[in-house]
Amino acid sequence: MACLDPSQKFALITKNLAEVLNPELIEQVLAERDLKVYWGTAPTGRPHCGYFVPMIKLAELLAADCEVTVLLADIHAFLDSLKSTPELVEHRVKYYQFMISAMLKAIGVSIEKLKFVIGSSFQKTPEYIFDIFRLSSVVSEHDAKRAGAEVVKQSKNAPLSSLMYPLLQILDEEHLQIDVQFGGIDQRKLFTAATEWLPKIGYKRRGHLLNAMVPGLGGGKMSSSDEDSKIDCLDAPNVITKKLRKAIAVPKVVEENGVLLFVEYVLLPAAALSKRPGFSVERDGQDTLVYTNISSMRDDYQNDILTPQILKPAVTKALIQLVAPIQEEFQNSKEWQEVALKAYPPPVKKEKKTKDKGTLHPGKAGGNDEIPLREA
Amino acid sequence: MACLDPSQKFALITKNLAEVLNPELIEQVLAERDLKVYWGTAPTGRPHCGYFVPMIKLAELLAADCEVTVLLADIHAFLDSLKSTPELVEHRVKYYQFMISAMLKAIGVSIEKLKFVIGSSFQKTPEYIFDIFRLSSVVSEHDAKRAGAEVVKQSKNAPLSSLMYPLLQILDEEHLQIDVQFGGIDQRKLFTAATEWLPKIGYKRRGHLLNAMVPGLGGGKMSSSDEDSKIDCLDAPNVITKKLRKAIAVPKVVEENGVLLFVEYVLLPAAALSKRPGFSVERDGQDTLVYTNISSMRDDYQNDILTPQILKPAVTKALIQLVAPIQEEFQNSKEWQEVALKAYPPPVKKEKKTKDKGTLHPGKAGGNDEIPLREA
Repeated sequence: MACLDPSQKFALITKNLAEVLNPELIEQVLAERDLKVYWGTAPTGRPHCGYFVPMIKLAELLAADCEVTVLLADIHAFLDSLKSTPELVEHRVKYYQFMISAMLKAIGVSIEKLKFVIGSSFQKTPEYIFDIFRLSSVVSEHDAKRAGAEVVKQSKNAPLSSLMYPLLQILDEEHLQIDVQFGGIDQRKLFTAATEWLPKIGYKRRGHLLNAMVPGLGGGKMSSSDEDSKIDCLDAPNVITKKLRKAIAVPKVVEENGVLLFVEYVLLPAAALSKRPGFSVERDGQDTLVYTNISSMRDDYQNDILTPQILKPAVTKALIQLVAPIQEEFQNSKEWQEVALKAYPPPVKKEKKTKDKGTLHPGKAGGNDEIPLREA
Repeated sequence: MACLDPSQKFALITKNLAEVLNPELIEQVLAERDLKVYWGTAPTGRPHCGYFVPMIKLAELLAADCEVTVLLADIHAFLDSLKSTPELVEHRVKYYQFMISAMLKAIGVSIEKLKFVIGSSFQKTPEYIFDIFRLSSVVSEHDAKRAGAEVVKQSKNAPLSSLMYPLLQILDEEHLQIDVQFGGIDQRKLFTAATEWLPKIGYKRRGHLLNAMVPGLGGGKMSSSDEDSKIDCLDAPNVITKKLRKAIAVPKVVEENGVLLFVEYVLLPAAALSKRPGFSVERDGQDTLVYTNISSMRDDYQNDILTPQILKPAVTKALIQLVAPIQEEFQNSKEWQEVALKAYPPPVKKEKKTKDKGTLHPGKAGGNDEIPLREA
C-alpha cells in the first residue's frame, strides 16, 4: 500500500464514512505532509468485535500513511460514576493497548505509525487545565449541553462532568497536536462545536471523520455491557459460531441488518486492505459467491440469492479467521493474560455451575493463567 | 490582645457575624490549637473602603491568633470574561497584597500570621485538577447552579465556568488545608454546599463564618465598579470629606444606613481592637458623644440626638485617621506606586479637562511616580 499520492490518500482516509467535516483542511495538509489523526476511547468494558468497525478506519488511515493517535481516556473511564478504581483503569488501559494493536495487526496493517496516548499524561498539566478554564469562560452552559447531547448521558440530575466532557474532548484536538479527529456520527454535534470553539481561544479548527453507527451482530447497537449482543475477540470459534447463529438477520431485509453491516464495514474493507479477492460465500452444490462491494451483496440479499442461511456461516468463517491471530497473540503473551486477569477480574460471586464455557475470557478460565480454547 | 483562652478566641472569631455554620467544628479545633481560616478575593477592581468590612473580621481573626490565609484568586480574575490579561492580573495581585496588608496594619493588628496564597500556585496542580474532575462527577449541574446562585452572575447564556466556580471555591478549602472559610452572607448556599460536597470525595467538612452584607457609604452595595458609591483608601482627605458629604443617611432611619453601618462594622470594631475608648461624635457647644456599642448609637440616631449632620463629620474624621497610615505607606513605597500604575493604568482616552483631581489614584496623577496628595 506504499506510494499513494495525496488524492489516493484522501480517498482512502474518507472511504466508507458517513460524513467528513472540513475536508478542505484535510486536503491542505495532505498536499504538504502526512495527516495526524486521533481517535479516543475510554478503557471501560472489554473491547468486542464491534470495535473492528473503528479499527478498520484506523487501519485505512495507517495504510494512508497517517500518524494515528489512539487516546486512551483513563480519566474519563475513572470518572464514569467513579465506579472503577484508578488501578483497575490502569490495567484496562494496558488491555486496550494489547487488544487494539492486535486487532490492527490482524487486519493486516503496519502499526509503526500508531501511537497510544494516555489521557492523564497531558490532561492534568497546567496548560491543559488553564485551557479548560479559558474554554469554560467562552462556552455557555447551553452550548456545552448541546455539544454533548448524543454522547453524554443526559438527565436533570446529570453530573456537572457531563457538561465538561465535551470541552475536554475538544481541547484534546489541540493538545494532541492533530489535524483531524475521527469518531462515530453520534459525535457530530461535538465535532461541529469543536470547529466553533477552538478559534474562540486562539486555536485552529480541525477536520473530522465521522463513521456510520453500526448495530451489533446480535441486533441493536453493539455494546460492551450487553453480553448477548457482543462477540468477544477472544471467544473460541465454537462460541463465535453459536453467537452468530443467534444473530438477527431477517431474510431479504438489508436495513439494520447487523450481519450484512458487519460485512460492509469490517469484512469487505479488511479484504480490500489485505488485497484478498473479496468476501466469499460458499454454497452447497453451487459456485461460491465472491463479493467485492456491498451493493451487489445487498441486491443478492434482497433477492434472496444471498440467504441468511448461507451468509451466516460465511461471516462466521471470516470472523474466526480475522480473530485467529489475535487469539494466537493472546495465548502466546503471558503479560497480556496477566493484564486481562487484572483488568477484568473474575466475578467474586459464589461459584455456580457455569454454562458459558466456550470462551477465552480469563475471568472464566478457572484462575489458570494458561487459557486454553474451550469447547462449548 | 495576647493570652486569650479558647472561649475568648471563639467569641472574637464569631463576633458581629450574620451567621456561623458548624460552630462545633471551630470549637473542637480551638480546644487543641489555633484556627486556620481562609478568605478569598479575586484581584479585579481597586479595593475600596468597603473592604474594611472583611478586613475588620480578618483583623479580629488575627487578634484571636488564627492563621489567616488570603487567597488571591488570579485565575478567577483572569477568567472573568477574559477581559484582563494575565500580566494585568499579576500586577493587581501585588496591588491587593500591598493594600490588604496596609489595611490590616492600619486597623492595628499584627500581620505575622497572615499569609497570601495566589490561586494559580495550586489551582493548576494535577491533584487539584483531579479533584475538580472527581467533584464534577458527584455534583449535579442543578446543585452546582444552586450553590453559585447568589455569587455568580446567572443567565441563560452563562458560561460553563459559572457552574465550575463553586466547585473550585469549595476545593480550595481542602487544598489550602484550612479549618474555616470566611465570606459574606451571599456565600451561604455555596458554604452549605461545601459541607455537603467535600465528604462525597473523601474530605472533611469545614466551618464557615458569614459576614453581613454592608451597603456602601454612598448607599447601595459598595462596589468597585461604581465610582460614586466608593471611597478609595488612597483618596485624599478632602475627597473623602466630599464623598461622605454626599453619602445617603436619612435622618432617624437606621435601616440600610450606609454611614451608620460603616460605624457598626468598621469604626467601632476597629476602636475595640486597638483598645481606643470608642467612636466619638463632637457636638458644637455640647459634650462629645462617645459610643462603644451600636445599639446606643442606633437609639440616639432614631431619636435624632445623633443627627446625620454631626455623624458624617465624625465618620469622615475617623475614616481619614484610619486610612492615614495606608496613604503614608503608599507614598513611601516606590514599589507599590509602580505596581499601582501597572495594575490600574491611566485610561488611554484623549485628555479631557479632568474634574476629579483630589485623589491619590496614580492613574489620575499625570504619570508622575511621586503621587502627591491633591486638593479638590
